[in-house]
Amino acid sequence: MSKDKDIIIIGCGAAGGTAAQFARKTDRKSSITIFEKDKYPQYSKCGLPYAISGKISNFYDLIEFSTEWFKKSKIDLFLETTVEKIDIENKIVIAKKGNAIIEKTYCSLILATGARPLIPPIKNIKKNNTLIGNIFTLRTMDDARKISSSINKGKNATIIGAGLIGLEMADSLYKKGMNVTVIEALPYILPNTLDKDMSNIVFKDISSNVKIFTNHIATKIEDHADIISEVSIKNNETGEEKNIGTDLLVIAAGLKPNISLAKDAGCEIGQTGHISVNRKCETSLKNIYAIGDCTELYDFYTKKSVPIGLGSIAVRQGIASGINAAGGNYILPDGVLQTSTSEFFGLEIAAVGSSVKGLPVVTGKFNGLSLPHYFPGGKPISIKVFVDEKTGKIIAAQAVGDRAAKRIDTFACAILGGMNVETFRKLETAYAPPIAPTLDAETLACDVVSIKLDRKR
Amino acid sequence: MSKDKDIIIIGCGAAGGTAAQFARKTDRKSSITIFEKDKYPQYSKCGLPYAISGKISNFYDLIEFSTEWFKKSKIDLFLETTVEKIDIENKIVIAKKGNAIIEKTYCSLILATGARPLIPPIKNIKKNNTLIGNIFTLRTMDDARKISSSINKGKNATIIGAGLIGLEMADSLYKKGMNVTVIEALPYILPNTLDKDMSNIVFKDISSNVKIFTNHIATKIEDHADIISEVSIKNNETGEEKNIGTDLLVIAAGLKPNISLAKDAGCEIGQTGHISVNRKCETSLKNIYAIGDCTELYDFYTKKSVPIGLGSIAVRQGIASGINAAGGNYILPDGVLQTSTSEFFGLEIAAVGSSVKGLPVVTGKFNGLSLPHYFPGGKPISIKVFVDEKTGKIIAAQAVGDRAAKRIDTFACAILGGMNVETFRKLETAYAPPIAPTLDAETLACDVVSIKLDRKR
Repeated sequence: MSKDKDIIIIGCGAAGGTAAQFARKTDRKSSITIFEKDKYPQYSKCGLPYAISGKISNFYDLIEFSTEWFKKSKIDLFLETTVEKIDIENKIVIAKKGNAIIEKTYCSLILATGARPLIPPIKNIKKNNTLIGNIFTLRTMDDARKISSSINKGKNATIIGAGLIGLEMADSLYKKGMNVTVIEALPYILPNTLDKDMSNIVFKDISSNVKIFTNHIATKIEDHADIISEVSIKNNETGEEKNIGTDLLVIAAGLKPNISLAKDAGCEIGQTGHISVNRKCETSLKNIYAIGDCTELYDFYTKKSVPIGLGSIAVRQGIASGINAAGGNYILPDGVLQTSTSEFFGLEIAAVGSSVKGLPVVTGKFNGLSLPHYFPGGKPISIKVFVDEKTGKIIAAQAVGDRAAKRIDTFACAILGGMNVETFRKLETAYAPPIAPTLDAETLACDVVSIKLDRKR
Repeated sequence: MSKDKDIIIIGCGAAGGTAAQFARKTDRKSSITIFEKDKYPQYSKCGLPYAISGKISNFYDLIEFSTEWFKKSKIDLFLETTVEKIDIENKIVIAKKGNAIIEKTYCSLILATGARPLIPPIKNIKKNNTLIGNIFTLRTMDDARKISSSINKGKNATIIGAGLIGLEMADSLYKKGMNVTVIEALPYILPNTLDKDMSNIVFKDISSNVKIFTNHIATKIEDHADIISEVSIKNNETGEEKNIGTDLLVIAAGLKPNISLAKDAGCEIGQTGHISVNRKCETSLKNIYAIGDCTELYDFYTKKSVPIGLGSIAVRQGIASGINAAGGNYILPDGVLQTSTSEFFGLEIAAVGSSVKGLPVVTGKFNGLSLPHYFPGGKPISIKVFVDEKTGKIIAAQAVGDRAAKRIDTFACAILGGMNVETFRKLETAYAPPIAPTLDAETLACDVVSIKLDRKR
C-alpha cells in the first residue's frame, strides 16, 4: 500500500460515501479512510420524510452502502468518530472515537462535513441549550426516528419553513393522520424553487390538505412540562399574532454549513459562507477537496457563488473528488444548474437554472395538459421558462404538474448546451396520445417567449 | 379579401388542419380553403387505437377541430371533396364534390395529401379488388369504426406488422378480450424504432399478453363466405408454414405516400418516393408547399432523406407551411430528429435520432430503475445511446420503461444542440426519491459510452 496516495474523507453522507466509492474505483490499492460522526454508514437523507410517512417501511432501508460494503471495498470507515483537527503541515487528521484518539496521515483529504439545521430565534424553543420536547429538526436518521416516535403523541403538527423539505414533511405527517400547519416567513411557499405565480399553483393545489401561513414567523413556544403545546406566530406585514396548538414541531428553515474544520485549516471560505471549491472540487489548499452541503460553487449562467444544497450535486462532486483525489482528472460542468424536484400531496414540481432576480430576462408561461385534449386522464402541467433578453439563451425553467422533473431535465440539457429559445421551441418532443401532446407545454412556453422577444425587436 | 394571398390546402389531417390554423393566425384576411376527401374534419389518427379499445369513449371525441371551428375561423372546409388536378400554369385547383366540380385559384398551395396503407401481397386477401370481410387497415376514422364493429364477431385477431401501430392495435384488441397474434416479417418487433437488444426487452414484457411471430410473413387467407377464417404464415428462414385461426385481421404493414397530384403537377419526388421539401416546407415548385406523411425531409445528423411518418413532425410542418404560405418566415430545424414514442401493455417506449446502421458509432446501454433502490415502486428503465465515434456527439437514443418519452426528449434536445456525450453525462438531472435517482439511467448510459471511447483513445 503506497502511502503517497492515502485518502482521508471526513463525512460519509451522499458526497463523502460517493467520493470513497469512486476513489476506490479509480485506484484499487490506495488506503481510503472515512471519519463519520454519525453512527450509520451512507444513507439517503432525502429519503427520510418517506421513512417517516411509512412509504419506506424501515429506516434501515435508507442505508445505501452498508458497513460490510465499505469493508469489502477495503475502505476504512470509522463511525461515531469526530475529527478534531486537520494538521495541514504534517498532513495528519486527528479524530476521536469515544476516548480513543486516531491520528492518520493523508495525501489527499476530502471534506464532506455537510451542514446542520438552522434554528430560528424563537422564544423558549430551547431549554438547557436543547430543543424542548417534541420539537425537532430533520437532518439525520436519528432526527427522523425521533419525529416518527412522536407522531402518535398528538394530532397537531406544525412545520417551520415551506421549502422542499418542509412540504415533504407536511405530506408525510398528513399521511400519518396529523393536522398539519406550515409557517413560511416569505410571502409565498417554495420561495427558493419557484416564482410567485408558479408557487401559487402549488399553494392552490395543496392548501386543502395543509394549512399554510405565508408571511408569518414563529415567535414563541408554549409548553406543558417541557413538551411543546403551542406555537405563537406573527404576520410579518400586519404584526397580527396567533397561537397554534401544536403537539409536534418540525423546523425546516434551512441549513448552516459545517466549515469550522476547513476554516481552521485555512481553506478559503466563499461569498455565501461555504467552502470555496472549483470544478475539480479543489479547495484553496493543495490536496484538500471539499464536496456537498459544506461547499459553494458558481452558477452556470450568472457565474455567481451559490451554496450546494442538493444531493444530486453532492453525488456528482463525490464522483469528481473521488476520482481526482485518486489521481484521475474529472472536471464538473462550468457551474451548477441546480436542477431540483420534489413531490407532495400527489403534485410534482421541478426547477432548474439561475436565480434571475435583477437580470434582463423574458419569461414565457404555458398552462396545459399532459395529454392531448381528447385523451382521458391528462393532468395539468404548467411550465415557465426564463430567457436572456439579449442572447435569447434559456437560463432557467420551472414546472408544476405531470412529469415536471423529466420536463425540467430537458431544459437542464438546453441550459447546459447554451441553447437559444428559438431552437428549443422547435424541438421535436415525443408524441403519442397516451403519453404527451403533439406540442408539449415545454415548447409552447418557449413560443410565448419568442412572441415577446419579437415584439421587442 | 385580397386574391393575391389566397391559400388552398389539400388534406385536412394533422398537417393540413394545422397549416390552415397557422395561416389564419398569420393573416387574418386571406382566403383559406381546404379540400378533404374524408367526411370528417381534422381528427387524431394516432388516437384511433384508443377509440377502438374504449379508452376514448367516442370516435367523435377524436375530432380536434370541428367544422364549426373552421367556419368561425373563416376557413372554407370542403369535406368529401377530391382534388382531381392542379393547374400549375393558371394556379387553379380542380376538385370534385359529388357531381359538382369546384375550381379555385390559389396564390399558395399546401399539399397535405397523406399516405395510404400498404397491403402486402397475400393470396386471397382481396375479392373484386376489395379486402375480404373482417380484414382491415387502420388509417381513417371509418377504418377504425369498422374494426370496432367487427370485434364481437369472434375471439381471434391477427395483426400484420409489429411496428408502433401494430402493437398499439394488439393492445387495443387484447383489451377488448381478443386473443391476439402479431406477425412481423423482420427478425424482431419495432424494427423501425428500436435496436434488437432494446426490442427484446419489449418482446419479453409483452409476449405473455400477445403471441408474436417474428421472421414470418402472411402468405394466404382462408375464408368462409368471404369472411376471413384463417391466415397462413411462413417462417422466412425455415420456410415452415402454419395456419392461424383468425376472425379479424388488421394490416399495419406501413404506408405509401399519396403523391400522384404532386407528381402530375411536376413537384420533385425524393429518394424515398415522397415529395421533396425543404425546411420551409417548400416543394421544388414555387408557391407550392407539401407537409406530413406525403413528404420527405432529411435527417438532422446524416442529412439523408427520410419519410415524414410522425404526427408530431406533420404538425410542425403544418405550423411552418401555414405561416410561410401566409407571408411569414418559419424555418424548421436543420433536419428531423424523428422523436417517437408509444405505450402498449403498460410499457412505454421511445426513440430519437438517426438510423445509425453502417455509421461509426459507439453505444452505451444502462438497465436501471426509475427510482432509487430503497424507494418502493421503482420501475425498470433501459436506455441505449448512440454516439459518433469521431466527434463524440450524441446522434440517437432509445428507451424502454418508465417515462421513456420524457427521457428521450432530453436526448432530443442534446442532439438538436449538437451536444457531446462528455457534456451530457455530467448533466444535473432532477433528483428526489419518489421521482428519480441521483444518477439517472440517461447519464449512466452515457458513462458507458465514455468508458468505451476512452479505451479507443
